[in-house]
Amino acid sequence: MDPSKLEQIALLETFENPHPARDYQIETVVPEFTSLCPKTGQPDFGTLTITYTPADVCVELKSLKMYLQSFRNVGAFYEDVTNRILDDLVSVTHPKHMKLIAAFTPRGGIRTNVIVEHRSE
Amino acid sequence: MDPSKLEQIALLETFENPHPARDYQIETVVPEFTSLCPKTGQPDFGTLTITYTPADVCVELKSLKMYLQSFRNVGAFYEDVTNRILDDLVSVTHPKHMKLIAAFTPRGGIRTNVIVEHRSE
Amino acid sequence: MDPSKLEQIALLETFENPHPARDYQIETVVPEFTSLCPKTGQPDFGTLTITYTPADVCVELKSLKMYLQSFRNVGAFYEDVTNRILDDLVSVTHPKHMKLIAAFTPRGGIRTNVIVEHRSE
Amino acid sequence: MDPSKLEQIALLETFENPHPARDYQIETVVPEFTSLCPKTGQPDFGTLTITYTPADVCVELKSLKMYLQSFRNVGAFYEDVTNRILDDLVSVTHPKHMKLIAAFTPRGGIRTNVIVEHRSE
Amino acid sequence: MDPSKLEQIALLETFENPHPARDYQIETVVPEFTSLCPKTGQPDFGTLTITYTPADVCVELKSLKMYLQSFRNVGAFYEDVTNRILDDLVSVTHPKHMKLIAAFTPRGGIRTNVIVEHRSE
Amino acid sequence: MDPSKLEQIALLETFENPHPARDYQIETVVPEFTSLCPKTGQPDFGTLTITYTPADVCVELKSLKMYLQSFRNVGAFYEDVTNRILDDLVSVTHPKHMKLIAAFTPRGGIRTNVIVEHRSE
Amino acid sequence: MDPSKLEQIALLETFENPHPARDYQIETVVPEFTSLCPKTGQPDFGTLTITYTPADVCVELKSLKMYLQSFRNVGAFYEDVTNRILDDLVSVTHPKHMKLIAAFTPRGGIRTNVIVEHRSE
Amino acid sequence: MDPSKLEQIALLETFENPHPARDYQIETVVPEFTSLCPKTGQPDFGTLTITYTPADVCVELKSLKMYLQSFRNVGAFYEDVTNRILDDLVSVTHPKHMKLIAAFTPRGGIRTNVIVEHRSE
Amino acid sequence: MDPSKLEQIALLETFENPHPARDYQIETVVPEFTSLCPKTGQPDFGTLTITYTPADVCVELKSLKMYLQSFRNVGAFYEDVTNRILDDLVSVTHPKHMKLIAAFTPRGGIRTNVIVEHRSE
Amino acid sequence: MDPSKLEQIALLETFENPHPARDYQIETVVPEFTSLCPKTGQPDFGTLTITYTPADVCVELKSLKMYLQSFRNVGAFYEDVTNRILDDLVSVTHPKHMKLIAAFTPRGGIRTNVIVEHRSE
Repeated sequence: MDPSKLEQIALLETFENPHPARDYQIETVVPEFTSLCPKTGQPDFGTLTITYTPADVCVELKSLKMYLQSFRNVGAFYEDVTNRILDDLVSVTHPKHMKLIAAFTPRGGIRTNVIVEHRSE
Repeated sequence: MDPSKLEQIALLETFENPHPARDYQIETVVPEFTSLCPKTGQPDFGTLTITYTPADVCVELKSLKMYLQSFRNVGAFYEDVTNRILDDLVSVTHPKHMKLIAAFTPRGGIRTNVIVEHRSE
Repeated sequence: MDPSKLEQIALLETFENPHPARDYQIETVVPEFTSLCPKTGQPDFGTLTITYTPADVCVELKSLKMYLQSFRNVGAFYEDVTNRILDDLVSVTHPKHMKLIAAFTPRGGIRTNVIVEHRSE
Repeated sequence: MDPSKLEQIALLETFENPHPARDYQIETVVPEFTSLCPKTGQPDFGTLTITYTPADVCVELKSLKMYLQSFRNVGAFYEDVTNRILDDLVSVTHPKHMKLIAAFTPRGGIRTNVIVEHRSE
Repeated sequence: MDPSKLEQIALLETFENPHPARDYQIETVVPEFTSLCPKTGQPDFGTLTITYTPADVCVELKSLKMYLQSFRNVGAFYEDVTNRILDDLVSVTHPKHMKLIAAFTPRGGIRTNVIVEHRSE
Repeated sequence: MDPSKLEQIALLETFENPHPARDYQIETVVPEFTSLCPKTGQPDFGTLTITYTPADVCVELKSLKMYLQSFRNVGAFYEDVTNRILDDLVSVTHPKHMKLIAAFTPRGGIRTNVIVEHRSE
Repeated sequence: MDPSKLEQIALLETFENPHPARDYQIETVVPEFTSLCPKTGQPDFGTLTITYTPADVCVELKSLKMYLQSFRNVGAFYEDVTNRILDDLVSVTHPKHMKLIAAFTPRGGIRTNVIVEHRSE
Repeated sequence: MDPSKLEQIALLETFENPHPARDYQIETVVPEFTSLCPKTGQPDFGTLTITYTPADVCVELKSLKMYLQSFRNVGAFYEDVTNRILDDLVSVTHPKHMKLIAAFTPRGGIRTNVIVEHRSE
Repeated sequence: MDPSKLEQIALLETFENPHPARDYQIETVVPEFTSLCPKTGQPDFGTLTITYTPADVCVELKSLKMYLQSFRNVGAFYEDVTNRILDDLVSVTHPKHMKLIAAFTPRGGIRTNVIVEHRSE
Repeated sequence: MDPSKLEQIALLETFENPHPARDYQIETVVPEFTSLCPKTGQPDFGTLTITYTPADVCVELKSLKMYLQSFRNVGAFYEDVTNRILDDLVSVTHPKHMKLIAAFTPRGGIRTNVIVEHRSE
């Protein structure tokens, strides 16, 4: 049985930003993201690149890995899952800025990237 | 017999943008575009890179593939076919922004890219 | 006997811009340009990259190839020949913008690029 | 026994900027930085790229190497150690500008870069 | 015996800019620069990239090569020699703009680039 | 619930070798193989390269894909799963020769390839 | 209407081997081969590498191109079309040795090469 | 305090070869090996590639990592440490064949590989 | 007027092999070979790689360059010119072994290499 | 004043082979070899790759570097200097086997490698 959206978000952990006085960037590349195509059930594969300027907290990397692995057997369209991952990460870390590039491997010979961005107000 | 222009456009399908509140980019790379040179009848080959910010709808990828394959036996100059594909995609999806880079493989030792862009008003 | 400058320009042909209403870019890469060093008579080799926004006409590619091949036995300094090719192409096509990058292969271990640009007023 | 923070900073040496009248950039790449994960004790590896505009003094390269090697058996989180190295270099050289990119090799399949920057006021 | 600084500058020759009416760029890459470390006597190696917008004159390439080869047995720190070469080239050619990137090969595992720039007033 | 080994093998289909008179090679590369580590439950990823000389039948590619996808949620050690896939393919196609290279992506910074080979007697 | 097999072979022309006394190799790479999948009608793309030791005649390159282009709208399985092209080329040129590597681009994420070889007796 | 040689070997664990009937190869690449130069105390870095044909047992990867990490603060010459690691692995796994390539990163601009091999009698 | 074949061969010079007692190899790569297609008059371009074991004499490199440049305006088929250059070099240097690989740049999208070899008896 | 040949050889030092019982290979790559062309006085640059199976002694790397640096201002033809370095290394280390590949950077657009080999009897 697939995890609920709340169960997935609950996997994400944070730690206190060690240098909150300085704006700086953390770039994390996860090359082995996989989910399922909701139409055909075929697996999709992609590389996620998350770049953010932390505010009060940073994303704990092991928990990020667990959160992303929880999509393994979830059906999700490219555009939808990319926006949703950004929303989840923003809701948990409230960063000053966050950008997510999802580069999916070719399907039917066609390669697609989805690029989403959040900026705190 | 070659498809008419209307028959080609009719191949394009869309689906509702799952996150219309956020401006984000979708980049799709199609490496195996082929048409015919209208002068010599020789095949041309190229890679199309389509980048756009969706408004109400997104391009459905399988239909995009069918639409682009319909050029297989169509005679078309580089500059013309690139502008026409952009026009067709804009007319069907009304994006906030769309850019198309068509990188053709060398002919006579000369390699040509055509870059066209649309911005909604 | 080498061609005169007028004979060389006369090789360039154009065709009507199929989409004059839209500003777009055409990038053409010619990897096999060769001329002679006017001092030593030794051959020079280089790759020319021509990027332009057409106004009323586009450069016909086969004629461009013939024009560039006419430099094969012409003596020409790097800086001079690059400026001259740009001038010839501008005089025949009157583009909105044109840029030419000439990347010459190493001579005496030293590699040189010359970059020239024209913008219509 | 690990070195204290003061012992580490004391390893950094400088020399007088030979051209203080001109603002210019020095970029130094150190591919073999290694420290320990404070949680697991496992070694981390990374490449540091330091770019700066010197004011009165430049960093002496051999002393920079010794300073960075002093982290070999120090436990340090990615975000923390990157900010701290920038702070140490700024405190010793007071540059007009300095940027540090720390590109760590993958851990658990996830690759992380931390990018910090200092600008004198 | 090493050449004096004046003897080195005297090696540089120029020729008249063939197109002074147009601002354009000349980029020259010299991959085999070598000098000596003044501390250890060990050879240093690097690649120099010179980019400039000529005013009245251009640098003659063979003389540039001779000038740079004259550093073969000269002791020179990275930051110093890079600034000095820019100064010499500017004093002889009075360009509208000139930039020099000196990318030295690794010493002690550490790789350094020095980037200097001149803009005429 | 995971498929049984027999259910997995049953996914493999073949078609008649169109040129049985000639010994020739078919090389198939599957870049997106994934299974689970039986110890930790963490996903493993790898690229499989299958090279074989067919006898009476060839492997049908879509069925090969389905067979390999059936390992998605199966726990399997590197050495074991590689030998087992070779055994399954041999039992179904009885090739004259077959070689399988499984190149797994790094785990704990360590990258492993397993290379197995079958030759008919 | 598709060409018959005889019409296709009739496209191949040869010329007399200029150095029949010496055994030597000719390697020709055709990167833009395309045919259709006989099951789905979807286009296939691939790169053909033909290596041979000519006996009395060599393959004329322009006719080879025409012959290979005649597969553009022909339905053909990978294994079949590769063996057939080798057979056609052998029947027309009777080489001492000929090898054909057909490297097809990925379909369904799976990339396939077919390697066939002929040796005169 | 550095570990004794026996303490280091004791870190290595094995598991039963799952397919002892077939001779096959396991190739393991460890990119982050580091030890100390016994003369200067400076750190050395290298990539180890271990290829072997297992007999009764295989090397457990996590224990291999721990064993190699135990060299972190050990002084060892290139030639010596490479031979010693091969000897340790052979003494614990008794493989049919084992080859170790140690590719060390440059020191003083000079890059060294050491290649050792064991074959059971 | 094109040079005669004898005039071309006369350009080749040799020097005495400095180590005739040892069999060793000299590999020379000439990336800028150009001649004309005898059918169309269009220029051909290619890279020649000459590998040989000298007997009594070696090829003088500057004379080799002059010899190869003498083909600049000569019409020559790929297979013919490659065999002829090998014959010329063998007739002048009588090497123990010589191999010539001529890799021509694509014409009509098709890339061709010709590989010829001579072994003294 | 240039060093004599004996002074150069005297720079080479050895150390006892730590594992004389096993035949193994040491491969050393020196990317920054430079000498002078005896004809023109122009500097030559190259990368030396030395591969050997030691007998009783190994080459000490720092002394190898000093020995190779002593060619900095020595005039030497490619073929000659490569054979001579092999002879010097063999005379000092008496290896079971030694191979030297000298890959010189292009001069006049032509790149040359010299490959020499020694095998003990």
